Amino acid sequence: MAEPTAARIARSAAALESPLTDLAGFDDWFAEHGRSIRTTAERIPLAAMENWYQTPVTGDLRHRSGKFFTVHGLRVHSPGSAVPWWDQPIIDQPEVGILGILVKEFDGVPHFLMQAKAEPGNPGGLQLSPTVQATRSNYTGVHRGKPVPYVDYFRDTSRHRVVADVRQSEQGAWFYRKRNRNMVVETTGEVEVLEGFRWFTLGQLHLLLSRHDIVNMDARTVMSCLPHASRPEGSLHRTTDVLSWINGARSLTTIDTERIALRGLDEWRHTDMGHSHESGGFFDVIGVSVTARGREVGGWHQPMIEPHGTGVIAFLVREIDGVPHALLHARTEPGYADVVELAPTVQCVPENYAWLPPAARPRHLDEVLAAGPDRILFDTVLSEEGGRFFHARNRYLIVDSDVPEDPGHPDFRWLSMDQLTRLLRHSHYLNVQARSLVACMRSLEATRDSA
Amino acid sequence: MAEPTAARIARSAAALESPLTDLAGFDDWFAEHGRSIRTTAERIPLAAMENWYQTPVTGDLRHRSGKFFTVHGLRVHSPGSAVPWWDQPIIDQPEVGILGILVKEFDGVPHFLMQAKAEPGNPGGLQLSPTVQATRSNYTGVHRGKPVPYVDYFRDTSRHRVVADVRQSEQGAWFYRKRNRNMVVETTGEVEVLEGFRWFTLGQLHLLLSRHDIVNMDARTVMSCLPHASRPEGSLHRTTDVLSWINGARSLTTIDTERIALRGLDEWRHTDMGHSHESGGFFDVIGVSVTARGREVGGWHQPMIEPHGTGVIAFLVREIDGVPHALLHARTEPGYADVVELAPTVQCVPENYAWLPPAARPRHLDEVLAAGPDRILFDTVLSEEGGRFFHARNRYLIVDSDVPEDPGHPDFRWLSMDQLTRLLRHSHYLNVQARSLVACMRSLEATRDSA
Repeated sequence: MAEPTAARIARSAAALESPLTDLAGFDDWFAEHGRSIRTTAERIPLAAMENWYQTPVTGDLRHRSGKFFTVHGLRVHSPGSAVPWWDQPIIDQPEVGILGILVKEFDGVPHFLMQAKAEPGNPGGLQLSPTVQATRSNYTGVHRGKPVPYVDYFRDTSRHRVVADVRQSEQGAWFYRKRNRNMVVETTGEVEVLEGFRWFTLGQLHLLLSRHDIVNMDARTVMSCLPHASRPEGSLHRTTDVLSWINGARSLTTIDTERIALRGLDEWRHTDMGHSHESGGFFDVIGVSVTARGREVGGWHQPMIEPHGTGVIAFLVREIDGVPHALLHARTEPGYADVVELAPTVQCVPENYAWLPPAARPRHLDEVLAAGPDRILFDTVLSEEGGRFFHARNRYLIVDSDVPEDPGHPDFRWLSMDQLTRLLRHSHYLNVQARSLVACMRSLEATRDSA
Repeated sequence: MAEPTAARIARSAAALESPLTDLAGFDDWFAEHGRSIRTTAERIPLAAMENWYQTPVTGDLRHRSGKFFTVHGLRVHSPGSAVPWWDQPIIDQPEVGILGILVKEFDGVPHFLMQAKAEPGNPGGLQLSPTVQATRSNYTGVHRGKPVPYVDYFRDTSRHRVVADVRQSEQGAWFYRKRNRNMVVETTGEVEVLEGFRWFTLGQLHLLLSRHDIVNMDARTVMSCLPHASRPEGSLHRTTDVLSWINGARSLTTIDTERIALRGLDEWRHTDMGHSHESGGFFDVIGVSVTARGREVGGWHQPMIEPHGTGVIAFLVREIDGVPHALLHARTEPGYADVVELAPTVQCVPENYAWLPPAARPRHLDEVLAAGPDRILFDTVLSEEGGRFFHARNRYLIVDSDVPEDPGHPDFRWLSMDQLTRLLRHSHYLNVQARSLVACMRSLEATRDSA
């Protein structure tokens, strides 16, 4: 009987040092690599974007190849909610991409091959990405760039060991039913380490996760799908009841969406420079000209989403009968494939609530914002996918809480960390923000040990 | 620690007799009840259906309330498959209905409350149905019928024990993304047994499953979602690899569907009496006038799908290292919510292949049809949902096989029965035909013991 994968992963999480990578040299490596790979993005008029066009009448933004993604309008009807109707732009990217991390044991410790990657929307240049982060258009060569390194490990897993493989959603407020395949594949063969790539233990990744804007969203979501052995076991609710809670919410919540013209959005301003909400809040759709050095192609234009304000994404956590639990929120977003996903306790941009009715103010937000330092277990600003979102930053928080076992609202429930790990083997239970927080929760073990 | 639910369910499966219900009297009860509850269906022109109309130009069939379901056209593009393009009618029923079985222990043995129910499409009158079988329009009263008995156990589970609760797909060849909530709820309270309802042990239901056209589709799918303890444990493939196989198929298979006018279907004949394929194969869309006695309302009209020919739905099964496995097929159907579901080894109407290219002939069909009696473990004709399908009958078979561990085609894999049980806690892994066969597989234990 081979050693369980979760036990080997735990050994990697406990390893804060590695013969291959010295974290003390991380900043030098990042800085040096950042000098040869740099991406700059400059805002340009929508009509000036090469290879993109605005569809006549609707103004929808499309790539001339018909591939990549489209930005169109969405009319949302959410009867019974605090904001029952709204219009918004949304990104439609039907292709399932691959987010893959390659794993290999060195000296008996699994290491993760990560890439220092520049994306046009990253607030600070490079971030640490999965080994592979590629849309299907990328890796099948629609954009005529260089081949995606290491992608064959994930396209044909037959000679390797699959550690995790699950399609997960991304931001349901900005993407219409986007899914990426989150994969972790282990090899025992020789792996050439290309420039810009490096092996890390999981413990080292956990340490880096507590630094602002270093570990990117794609790396966080793949990390959350790793096997994880939680001790002690047990949970407040039986898993059958948790599944029934999710099923009930999905069966009974109505959210209707209708595709409409991007230029036809009500309460949005449409100019040559983009689409913005009349309130000045939420987000803009903009066009950018990207100049890249050391990347697949030298430069390109593309639409991006630029959110306003820094978000707050938080888990309230507590122990129940000695077992760590997090307070999850059954949340509806218009772009989810299946109505409801489990979200962090709090997930919002506080500034936006100035324009919304008081009933829309998120539950538990005030408790998170008022928490003293003794109750804040994790507090790091991390950014969202820099290939589609321009400077989309969120403050990720984990806050010790004394919210009771019955949180007093049917859309909120305490789930054990082990239950979250089990749900993460399957698609569309946890949203991308909750997955990031799961990775952060697990990182607390490493940071605690090194403190 | 309470006794695990799966162990209590197993006790019910082992109980072939019950103080509440004597199977010897089953036929008398069914016959007597059938005299007071009868449904007859007569074919009428589409335009003659009361409360239904054909949309101008498209000819799509709609109910005047806007509820229930719609029949429209679908153009399917499945590049790389043996039949890369086709048109067909499809039923669009976006509401999530409830299929629920109420459970209660008598003398320490869980019993299941089943209903003798008449549906217009049933080939032989009554069939045994779940306690509740209701669309949302049904139980919220859109059709102005009587209230649905027992539905409150499933609409508010807070004072009961949820045994299973999972949304599952139905026929992806005939329904566009239909899902029903499959629920099993246990109560300890007093339950009044209404006329037409009766308590059965699971063992008794298993015995009835081997009789033609008795246990209906809705009962079979709910039974398949029950907890089930499989011994011995073990499986040919790790579950991580099974999940990766499904994810890969879902990520890489392309099936594009486009809604088109029902009257605009290519290769279909459109007459006053319905829509039929030019070949005379596949299925017709027809209108029926239903006369019901003892049902919610006295009569109504509705469209139905009438398939041609009796289908063959079969599991090849074998033991691998002493553990029972079934050969599953990763199958694409145009109406699936998520591209691919696991289907029986064989699922087809053999007659239809006269009109299709030889490459489309289903793998393993010939092995199933040629199997001698010594290899046939289960062989019963069961029908599909009689509320939408008119005389849709399939021969369900379980056949002992010596197909090797590597079945020689990437779309087929041996899964252990225990793996199927675990997948059935989650939505959309097993299609409705495979779920029926899982219920049949489990019934073999009961029939073996009583032989």
